[in-house]
Amino acid sequence: MKNSIFEPVEKELVLVENGIKAIADVEYTWLAELLDYIVNSGGKRVRPTLTLLAGKINSRFNLDSLIPVATGVELLHTASLVHDDTIDLSMRRRGKPTAASIWGWGIATLAGDYLFSKAAEFVSQANSVRADRLFAQTLMALCTGELEESFSSFDENQTRERYFRKIGNKTASLFSMATESAGIVNEAPEQEIKALRAYGYNLGMAFQVVDDIFDFTADEDKLGKPVASDLLQGNLTLPAIMLKERYPEDNPIKAIFENRGKEKSLDLAIEMIRNSGIITDCYKVAQSFTSEACKTIKTFPDKPSRKALLEIAGYVVERQK
Amino acid sequence: MKNSIFEPVEKELVLVENGIKAIADVEYTWLAELLDYIVNSGGKRVRPTLTLLAGKINSRFNLDSLIPVATGVELLHTASLVHDDTIDLSMRRRGKPTAASIWGWGIATLAGDYLFSKAAEFVSQANSVRADRLFAQTLMALCTGELEESFSSFDENQTRERYFRKIGNKTASLFSMATESAGIVNEAPEQEIKALRAYGYNLGMAFQVVDDIFDFTADEDKLGKPVASDLLQGNLTLPAIMLKERYPEDNPIKAIFENRGKEKSLDLAIEMIRNSGIITDCYKVAQSFTSEACKTIKTFPDKPSRKALLEIAGYVVERQK
Repeated sequence: MKNSIFEPVEKELVLVENGIKAIADVEYTWLAELLDYIVNSGGKRVRPTLTLLAGKINSRFNLDSLIPVATGVELLHTASLVHDDTIDLSMRRRGKPTAASIWGWGIATLAGDYLFSKAAEFVSQANSVRADRLFAQTLMALCTGELEESFSSFDENQTRERYFRKIGNKTASLFSMATESAGIVNEAPEQEIKALRAYGYNLGMAFQVVDDIFDFTADEDKLGKPVASDLLQGNLTLPAIMLKERYPEDNPIKAIFENRGKEKSLDLAIEMIRNSGIITDCYKVAQSFTSEACKTIKTFPDKPSRKALLEIAGYVVERQK
Repeated sequence: MKNSIFEPVEKELVLVENGIKAIADVEYTWLAELLDYIVNSGGKRVRPTLTLLAGKINSRFNLDSLIPVATGVELLHTASLVHDDTIDLSMRRRGKPTAASIWGWGIATLAGDYLFSKAAEFVSQANSVRADRLFAQTLMALCTGELEESFSSFDENQTRERYFRKIGNKTASLFSMATESAGIVNEAPEQEIKALRAYGYNLGMAFQVVDDIFDFTADEDKLGKPVASDLLQGNLTLPAIMLKERYPEDNPIKAIFENRGKEKSLDLAIEMIRNSGIITDCYKVAQSFTSEACKTIKTFPDKPSRKALLEIAGYVVERQK
């Protein structure tokens, strides 16, 4: 991401980073090592940046509450990644071995739980019951989205509507919490809180749609996993759903799900998606979400923080895997 | 447990039960089925009973806040059991197959996360940031205790001090939250909150010590797992620690941990613990905790709720597996 995105909240991000690092300052050396490994495993800190920018765009600005909430948002994200990796038996993330692959999935599960509690504790430092409740509801949405993915895998009837609901839960909920919570702890007018929530939600939707595009367009090296791994795992994302919509009678998804000539059918699906204009249409969907995101924050005053939020929206659809 | 323990809060417990059951009222039938199975898997609802009794013993009584907090406490307990069973690969709990054994550990992990979020949401309904923070810290303590158990397994240097710290985290923390939170949401004087916290903590310590005694004294049928399974899993509980203390040079623990003649050594350890007065000494430790628990609530007025809390303390050491 461009530096101009982080610039308006550079100082505050250092405080968030310090808070995250301090988590590993615990009495037990074995726990310190485990936590240190997890919280310093990279990551661009997009979500706390959103919280801080949303906090600065607001008509009120309460730094003492924004820092712990931004830290809590990032830790909630980290904790959910630890559990995702554990559940999916993923061996690597961001080029490094996952906690589960080093410590085993039992300890990784507990470490994820520990980070959930740390995230909740940070959010509670903002002294806002409403923010605490939003935290709980966000965790609930994340779990619902992941559970929905588990339960619907290899189900051919995954529709566009169900897809949007699923990514709304598993991805957009955390983005919308990131921005909405800033409005809440700033005690901003309800209208501002609503706008920030809508910005985050739409940004998150676009983010996930683009990630799901990458799964078909990037190569294995950049993905760090096989191309079309979603499809292989039985999850229909937007490109695959569009493939089904375009060729309802003649698409290879049924064969992939039924494991018939899997490799050949998978290659065919990738080729059909890449060469059919589906990718362009998916990008249009992502762009309609980011347009909506940008629209919601137009009423805020023209500050560097608003400019950065608009830039992030551009980045989300323009980024390369 | 005797009915007289539940009597002072009978009506309130119905409300808690309704709240727990309502969790399964979700749009997705697959999720409803999963949640329904987990939250209706038995359990004596000891912890919410403690919250309600502690709420009624207080000089103030705020029912609207106590019910959601008591519900949250029970759900936190349920969620942590789901994760414990998942991590330990347990097939049965309370005579029924575990969620992990039916739905697989990935979905069970997510279901546990979902219940953590539900628990947090219930607690947040009490509109007390302090209660929210206590919730987060309790989850943190539970994880720390479980992680400590994982990291110290098959380590011969597990001392009495480390044992008390571990069970303080993994068990007593939730009991102390159950009673302390009642004081918090009632906005009771600090001294009362402190007394309730101490009651819950000491009761929880006694509860775990007695559970650890059962692991050596009960038979396999009643335990639902092999006798001395803690020792088999490399965890030294109070009876085993006392065995080490009494016979520092001549005890079979080293052999069990090193897997030398495991079965014979295990039988020897069980026999030595059963026939050495160690069990009596362990019960003395449990009783000293319950005495301390009872002492802390002596200053409260003589109400049925106080009587019930004193009875619970008696029950904890007198119960049979």
